[in-house]
Amino acid sequence: MTKTAVVALGGNALTRAGQSGTCDEMLANAAAMASAVHAVIEAGWRVVIVHGNGPQVGNLALQQEGTAMVPAQPLPLLSAMTQGLLGSLLARAIDLLRGPGTAVAIITHVTVDPADPAFGAPSKPIGPFFEPAEARQLAQARGWVVQPDSGRGYRRVVASPEPVGVIEIDALRALVDAGHLVIAGGGGGIPVHGTGPRGGLAEAVIDKDRAAGLIARLLGAQALLLVTAVDRLMLDYGQPTQSELGAITAAEAARHLAEGQFPPGSMGPKVEAALRFLADDGELAVITSPDLLAATLTGAGERSGTRIERSPVHAEPSR
Amino acid sequence: MTKTAVVALGGNALTRAGQSGTCDEMLANAAAMASAVHAVIEAGWRVVIVHGNGPQVGNLALQQEGTAMVPAQPLPLLSAMTQGLLGSLLARAIDLLRGPGTAVAIITHVTVDPADPAFGAPSKPIGPFFEPAEARQLAQARGWVVQPDSGRGYRRVVASPEPVGVIEIDALRALVDAGHLVIAGGGGGIPVHGTGPRGGLAEAVIDKDRAAGLIARLLGAQALLLVTAVDRLMLDYGQPTQSELGAITAAEAARHLAEGQFPPGSMGPKVEAALRFLADDGELAVITSPDLLAATLTGAGERSGTRIERSPVHAEPSR
Repeated sequence: MTKTAVVALGGNALTRAGQSGTCDEMLANAAAMASAVHAVIEAGWRVVIVHGNGPQVGNLALQQEGTAMVPAQPLPLLSAMTQGLLGSLLARAIDLLRGPGTAVAIITHVTVDPADPAFGAPSKPIGPFFEPAEARQLAQARGWVVQPDSGRGYRRVVASPEPVGVIEIDALRALVDAGHLVIAGGGGGIPVHGTGPRGGLAEAVIDKDRAAGLIARLLGAQALLLVTAVDRLMLDYGQPTQSELGAITAAEAARHLAEGQFPPGSMGPKVEAALRFLADDGELAVITSPDLLAATLTGAGERSGTRIERSPVHAEPSR
Repeated sequence: MTKTAVVALGGNALTRAGQSGTCDEMLANAAAMASAVHAVIEAGWRVVIVHGNGPQVGNLALQQEGTAMVPAQPLPLLSAMTQGLLGSLLARAIDLLRGPGTAVAIITHVTVDPADPAFGAPSKPIGPFFEPAEARQLAQARGWVVQPDSGRGYRRVVASPEPVGVIEIDALRALVDAGHLVIAGGGGGIPVHGTGPRGGLAEAVIDKDRAAGLIARLLGAQALLLVTAVDRLMLDYGQPTQSELGAITAAEAARHLAEGQFPPGSMGPKVEAALRFLADDGELAVITSPDLLAATLTGAGERSGTRIERSPVHAEPSR
């Protein structure tokens, strides 16, 4: 039986640092991501792609507020639009490599808990970086919360609640079963809660690694592949004792996480998503760069990224 | 065996004349459309929805050009974004009536011929209406082609080539077979041609009635339901001899079309899509308002819209 891998790609894999987000930039980046995914399929895996939308949804918000001629849409509908935008670009890129109709992107709604404390503490950066003065001005004019990000300037931050369920999970499964590469949960999914006002659309952006982990658990996927800009997780990052992690167990990863080795805004959420997936019947989680994705998954190749393997049962409590 | 109906809804069913396109307006309009579709499902039909995007894609284009901070995307990617936007709103509205996961929207690419003469003759109006002076100014500043529309002012017009194929048709069929209501081909589909530059993305907006007709033919659907603002097709519209059309044959509809009864920018494309569908094994085409949709399809109800029925074989050439 063919195994299924859920691949999580960052929005900044499609609009890279220093890029402004033109169509040509995104097309080239989508082609690079399609190559990485192509290698995974060639290794015999079925693939579901979950992409982020941080740069794109923030850009869209800026454009929406840029003219008085047309009303701006709320954040969840901007995420819906980025699912169309990036779903189209990724599907095209994959179809150009593997034939028309291979990939299909579905508009995906993800349920969240309206009582999630994340609604009171915006933490997810979206859109471009600003100088401090410009950030303060935008925050005041538009009611944004802004925070410093990655030492590269200030960004708008929005609420990022925990994903609880995936509305379109049956449709997703039907398409995977029919042999399609499915692009789902883009931007972490369009957040909804029950039947609240505005059709339950929630003013938030869900973390795409968490959404990918949830989709992997609901599908019963064997592998969760978290694509990032670096080849491997690091211990003692930036210190003289710095070292890279190759193959480790979930128990080891949990210990490193508890020791504070993986920062909250960076590798922390990826390791948390990996551990949760492995605690729930997942076999393997991978954290690596696009180039090493297939080699790390299969264990072939001279160099590979970080493989986190399910711990032997009863060997050590993993949480 | 359950029969399948493809329902085509205009973008102006979701942003109505005089509305600016706020989220709340679109949510209310989507709820009304969901009610009409709900009645069709209750009558025992499977449904595929194809929605237009004229007002929304034009609005998005205005917003994209409204700020220098972020690059504007080309027209096909704006259509992709409206598939996300309107797909989300329609799926939510249907799920609120029929349960979570009933509906699923897929990002749909539709192939066009790069040699289609429509690329040299923009004809499809998008976005808001402008006064003549403002329209002239925008045309000059942004390289638009503008034309008068419906006697209500000037609008931007773009190329609208004939849809030739649907890239995601297999995925669409798999979802229909799995019992989902599928929203596909939004905005007429994202137009692509082969492997041209920019991933083959074409600078155009496909007519949604034509796309709906193509999808209906490819799926082997039994009915094509073209939703509009009026209850019935009219003969001698606006003249003292004006009359409404109830049930007619394809041959009769073809004769009225040839006589110029249905204007090119209005009912003409709907009747053409209906006739092409009926010539290719379709059983019934309906042109009516949302309120009369289910009653016209089933032939029940006191009042119904226009039913165009397949002509008896060999009775009369229908084209």
